[in-house]
Amino acid sequence: MSASLIGLDWGSTHLRAYLFGADGMVLETRALAHGIRQLPAGGFPEAFALAVREWPALPVLACGMVGSRNGWQEVPYLDTPTGVERLAQHLTPLATPGGHRLYLVPGLHDPHRPDVMRGEETQIVGVLATEPATTRLLLPGTHSKWVRLRDGVVTGFATVMTGELYGLLRQHSILGAALPEARDDEEAFRRGVAAARDSGPAGALSRLFSARALMLDGALDPAAVPDYLSGLLIGEEMRMALAAGWADANGSIPMVGEGPLCDRYRRAADLYGLQLSRAPDGTTADGLWQIATAAALAAAPATAHTS
Amino acid sequence: MSASLIGLDWGSTHLRAYLFGADGMVLETRALAHGIRQLPAGGFPEAFALAVREWPALPVLACGMVGSRNGWQEVPYLDTPTGVERLAQHLTPLATPGGHRLYLVPGLHDPHRPDVMRGEETQIVGVLATEPATTRLLLPGTHSKWVRLRDGVVTGFATVMTGELYGLLRQHSILGAALPEARDDEEAFRRGVAAARDSGPAGALSRLFSARALMLDGALDPAAVPDYLSGLLIGEEMRMALAAGWADANGSIPMVGEGPLCDRYRRAADLYGLQLSRAPDGTTADGLWQIATAAALAAAPATAHTS
Repeated sequence: MSASLIGLDWGSTHLRAYLFGADGMVLETRALAHGIRQLPAGGFPEAFALAVREWPALPVLACGMVGSRNGWQEVPYLDTPTGVERLAQHLTPLATPGGHRLYLVPGLHDPHRPDVMRGEETQIVGVLATEPATTRLLLPGTHSKWVRLRDGVVTGFATVMTGELYGLLRQHSILGAALPEARDDEEAFRRGVAAARDSGPAGALSRLFSARALMLDGALDPAAVPDYLSGLLIGEEMRMALAAGWADANGSIPMVGEGPLCDRYRRAADLYGLQLSRAPDGTTADGLWQIATAAALAAAPATAHTS
Repeated sequence: MSASLIGLDWGSTHLRAYLFGADGMVLETRALAHGIRQLPAGGFPEAFALAVREWPALPVLACGMVGSRNGWQEVPYLDTPTGVERLAQHLTPLATPGGHRLYLVPGLHDPHRPDVMRGEETQIVGVLATEPATTRLLLPGTHSKWVRLRDGVVTGFATVMTGELYGLLRQHSILGAALPEARDDEEAFRRGVAAARDSGPAGALSRLFSARALMLDGALDPAAVPDYLSGLLIGEEMRMALAAGWADANGSIPMVGEGPLCDRYRRAADLYGLQLSRAPDGTTADGLWQIATAAALAAAPATAHTS
């Protein structure tokens, strides 16, 4: 058994555990539903025990909401600019019942906006492991992050609540509630993106009610309203990114996220003349390994093969 | 008894009934909780009967969501430009169990955005009755309306879902749910407005997550987050109105709405150098009377005193 480290990607709704070999290869992966909002009866210690059960007593590195105010232990944010070395120097140790040495990765804080992230900093480090010259990065999701980097260091970032807003409008608003079952409608999605793109400096929030007006007009199928809204909100995110300088039409911006969502963002970006490309999977595991080796929790890759 | 008309302001959550004298004076007002989403067991006929009970069998004019797709009977929207005469020519009659002649006022549709309103057209007519030269009008609320007029005719309008978005974020989002009891905080409100004003062409949606970052920083009291969000969203509405040309800093824009909300908008407008003034109360009743007399449902004011 050449295992050398356990990594935990512990968010609000998920808990993924990685058993790393001495060379950084992932030997085994576990996925549990015990995000910090869905803990078992025994709370954090019980979820942790389930995640690492039967694995050797190795150092454990965890990132994500587990280090938030509502997590197992709050870990202060680090101000940007911050890179992997600084993250590795600020791990917070936490005693666990099973005798594992657990360390929590800090989140990042951009004091200029202000803005915060927790978990994404590890994904960013994972991208940098294979693409150290990355200068822009997009992590689309519930809370999308647009990240600026220089020389492997995060210099700033901005959060857009696109995914959460979509969910709120879809489930609870006059626009999205009481609709018939949704169906995929690429034309409605593109129409929403175009409405955002053409909304000018006022922005797409000024066009939100068009989802209802178009439906009442008979110009938008009620079953296609969700895709129209999705296009409008993702399109608005692109409009903002261009207006704020988080993105420009020069070169391609790598994206880290789930496949179908990244694909949706790519299709929206096409209508803005913006190039997005999907980064390889596994960035969180890669990032955990990079931070652990920088902190000397795990054997560094150079010596790994001798263990 | 000089009563000449019954007016109904029938929205989603409220039903207000007015008994008009022959001169247009309101003799009696009733307020029922039976908006079209809160009907009694007997449905629309029963709510109607409760609203007009013991009143004489006069013509009845109703405006608002009662004429929507989910209302008593759907009344088609009229395209802008439309003024009081055109509204009066397009009333939809509806037979009622009690033998009243009921007429429904159509809503308005702006084909250029597209956008729709239902109920506000009557308030606008009410404002025009005392201020016929009005060229801009703001009706703040769940779905705020910014209205352009020329020669007493509505030429276009835009809906901003500020109130609904606030409610969604306050009740269901990571920003607003699980907060301690809110307290009024004028400084947090002004700070939100300023954040929107200073958000540049990207707009305040790009700053929404600052509500959370500031709170985590300890720079915003959790109990003041709702007022910060309110300021951010109302401020964004002002930013959009200026960017889209619905408003400009020349002259004062009259506002029709509830007192505390109008006051909130006025305070936000101050930070934009925009002047908003509150129009007198009673615009819906005034508007119903104007439309009814234009449609010859009620005696015209000139002849009213002889009846």
